[in-house]
Amino acid sequence: MKHTLRDLAAKLGCHLLGDGSITVSSVSSLQSASSEGLVFVEDAQYLDAAIASPAAAIIVGDFAAGNFAASTAKSLLISAQPRLAFARAAKLLRDVDRDQAIHPSAIVAASVKIGEETTIGAGSVIGDNVLIGNQCRIDANVTIYSGTTLGDRVIVQAGAVLGSEGFGYVRDSKTGRYEQFPQIGRLVIEDDVEIGANSTIDHGALDETRIRRGTKIDNLVHIGHNVQIGENLVIAAQTGLSGSAIVEDNVIIGGQVGIADHVRIEEGAILGAQSGIPTKKVIRGKGVVFWGTPARPIREYLKELAFLSRSAKKER
Amino acid sequence: MKHTLRDLAAKLGCHLLGDGSITVSSVSSLQSASSEGLVFVEDAQYLDAAIASPAAAIIVGDFAAGNFAASTAKSLLISAQPRLAFARAAKLLRDVDRDQAIHPSAIVAASVKIGEETTIGAGSVIGDNVLIGNQCRIDANVTIYSGTTLGDRVIVQAGAVLGSEGFGYVRDSKTGRYEQFPQIGRLVIEDDVEIGANSTIDHGALDETRIRRGTKIDNLVHIGHNVQIGENLVIAAQTGLSGSAIVEDNVIIGGQVGIADHVRIEEGAILGAQSGIPTKKVIRGKGVVFWGTPARPIREYLKELAFLSRSAKKER
Amino acid sequence: MKHTLRDLAAKLGCHLLGDGSITVSSVSSLQSASSEGLVFVEDAQYLDAAIASPAAAIIVGDFAAGNFAASTAKSLLISAQPRLAFARAAKLLRDVDRDQAIHPSAIVAASVKIGEETTIGAGSVIGDNVLIGNQCRIDANVTIYSGTTLGDRVIVQAGAVLGSEGFGYVRDSKTGRYEQFPQIGRLVIEDDVEIGANSTIDHGALDETRIRRGTKIDNLVHIGHNVQIGENLVIAAQTGLSGSAIVEDNVIIGGQVGIADHVRIEEGAILGAQSGIPTKKVIRGKGVVFWGTPARPIREYLKELAFLSRSAKKER
Repeated sequence: MKHTLRDLAAKLGCHLLGDGSITVSSVSSLQSASSEGLVFVEDAQYLDAAIASPAAAIIVGDFAAGNFAASTAKSLLISAQPRLAFARAAKLLRDVDRDQAIHPSAIVAASVKIGEETTIGAGSVIGDNVLIGNQCRIDANVTIYSGTTLGDRVIVQAGAVLGSEGFGYVRDSKTGRYEQFPQIGRLVIEDDVEIGANSTIDHGALDETRIRRGTKIDNLVHIGHNVQIGENLVIAAQTGLSGSAIVEDNVIIGGQVGIADHVRIEEGAILGAQSGIPTKKVIRGKGVVFWGTPARPIREYLKELAFLSRSAKKER
Repeated sequence: MKHTLRDLAAKLGCHLLGDGSITVSSVSSLQSASSEGLVFVEDAQYLDAAIASPAAAIIVGDFAAGNFAASTAKSLLISAQPRLAFARAAKLLRDVDRDQAIHPSAIVAASVKIGEETTIGAGSVIGDNVLIGNQCRIDANVTIYSGTTLGDRVIVQAGAVLGSEGFGYVRDSKTGRYEQFPQIGRLVIEDDVEIGANSTIDHGALDETRIRRGTKIDNLVHIGHNVQIGENLVIAAQTGLSGSAIVEDNVIIGGQVGIADHVRIEEGAILGAQSGIPTKKVIRGKGVVFWGTPARPIREYLKELAFLSRSAKKER
Repeated sequence: MKHTLRDLAAKLGCHLLGDGSITVSSVSSLQSASSEGLVFVEDAQYLDAAIASPAAAIIVGDFAAGNFAASTAKSLLISAQPRLAFARAAKLLRDVDRDQAIHPSAIVAASVKIGEETTIGAGSVIGDNVLIGNQCRIDANVTIYSGTTLGDRVIVQAGAVLGSEGFGYVRDSKTGRYEQFPQIGRLVIEDDVEIGANSTIDHGALDETRIRRGTKIDNLVHIGHNVQIGENLVIAAQTGLSGSAIVEDNVIIGGQVGIADHVRIEEGAILGAQSGIPTKKVIRGKGVVFWGTPARPIREYLKELAFLSRSAKKER
């Protein structure tokens, strides 16, 4: 869907320098720019390359606000957050009207309720009493178990499994055999959550697992039963959260992080890739990066690594 | 399926204190207890809360055996293993007669043999000559490759892949290219094994991969070709076992553990989350916890961590 | 498909000692050898066991070239690379003529182009404008997103997801909410690449993700957007590569390795299992093994581990 630069500037809250009647139809990188394409520059050193590219126009940081020479060569959309404006422009250019669309090969139980403009991909299986909000996108071969609830604008990529049974067993001390602890709770996914391919999220054991609004989850992530995840987290690929972990708002979790059961990660902490948080541990520190297993503040961890490296070299 | 407390007490081997004619229809947590629900208490400090809850009855540890005051307020089912009795009660209350049920969208090869009361979910694909025992539950979008054998009461959650080809290649020393080593063995899953969502288990290269009875496997676990896994293990999420590893009975494996090829884990060892066992290593120690990469007894590992932390702090 | 030993010797470039008119129909391990089966021996100490087995013939290293006593007992196919010859023999014995075969339950968009002798398994979903070359094998329940390109002889095992959207977000500094960065690039998989069960490979953000010819990828591996992977790599199970990582030819990557964004792994490096490569790091060293997080040459890492172990023991 084409837009004029004038229209985009208004919708994105950008300041327009240059010809607002030019139309653009797509976004691209500098290397693959085309004559109807929009590129972005957040670092002044790339501005000349962007101007020299075939792109129709440039979204650029406010460092370029006074650069009239640039704007005579190429129209500029100036933004305090040029990467964000570029992301939003891409969305506007991609947007099409859509209807609710359930692929005929999807298996959707009769009791499922599906909102407006939601799409369900081929081969997906949606169990009894699942609720799915408006404008969700469920891709192909997804499985959503009975009783799961999804808010609005939730995206679930291919192969993800939502609402599987948690991993809870009771060992019979006489026979040594494991008996499943009841897994009868539910899973609630709030608005604007996005879930990557082949990730798995278990429903609660007796109560609920919940992923709060705006949290983004990468591929092959595991989230166990009873986990409570706050708003606006990013959780990178292959990370795992064990049963009953609590993660507060705005936490950033790197890839392959392991979070044991009953851990609490307090607001705004940052967990480096591959770090590990042992059982029942509390991690506290807004904006503090933690690393290693067991995870500690990265300053401490780096000092330990440096000490170890020096000491081992000193020995013969 | 409703049961009277008298009936449950008999089936679970519990001692009944109070009115045995009361019926219950479900289990729940204390917080979500309802008037037809059963709760459990294994720690005496929660007994008062359970009595005050709307629950119909309480499964409780034998510490409550003489507590007649409690039992006049609420009927008690007393058990030496209250959590286990609760798990079994949940199963009795959930149990329904069921027939063999194969979802019409499942693709099941003509040569597949399926036992009684086994269910196969939507979108699952079962290859040639697969044998599946009685009372198994294969959920949605599962793939079982040709020649795989499953015992009785096996549970396979959504998206799991059983009997995929193992990762074995021979490098041509002249061209540097990899040629697949033959992957023509099979996979045997014994009775009462449970497998989590999106886990993958390869069949043997020339011989077999085998998971022995009663072992429970969480989500996103990888088990390579020729692996031999004993009875009554628990293997937490995202753990990986490389080709030809041998794990004996009653081992407990945490999440994200990495077990290299040809490793042997002897009976009853416990591997902490994220630990790593290098190629051909033997891990021995019933009840001993191992941690770290390479995994060592946790006492040693914790001493090393403490030494490192102290030493790095002492330096300036 | 049966072959005479004479025929196999010619096709595999082996030297035949003994009766070339004998036919074989399969390969096997020594333990499961049958009278029409072929076994292999690359270590002289197993030759006697192979001769004593019921196998029809033995592929053996050139150490056996002068061993006429052996060849009177059992026909030998002598090769400088006996394991490789065995792998190729297995392929010849397995080979059947095949046609293009798309399972009727697969959902293949009308615009998809599929080469000769390519098979697509049950329940797989192939999006718009996907190109798949000749002699590919797409197993069951695979999802291939729109615009993905596969070369010839590509194998994709069950449940894998190719061309999913990458994990890229821009945070709005005013609201704290994440907006998806455009994920509109594509994914190119070159000839002879093999991809394990339930692995996920994202397409490029603005440009492309590419896996070059001959690279083999195990189960549950994650490859992020814009990653560039060279020729003839092996990548073991559960490894993850973050966005824009570059890995050159002939690199060997163990299981559960974590590679952060914008890392470069130069030609021929070897990454030990569970090692971790931090953001933007360059790893250089043909044939050098790296281990640990952050990954360092294994000699250094082992020295550090030894120092740590000794020091912690010395303390009381």
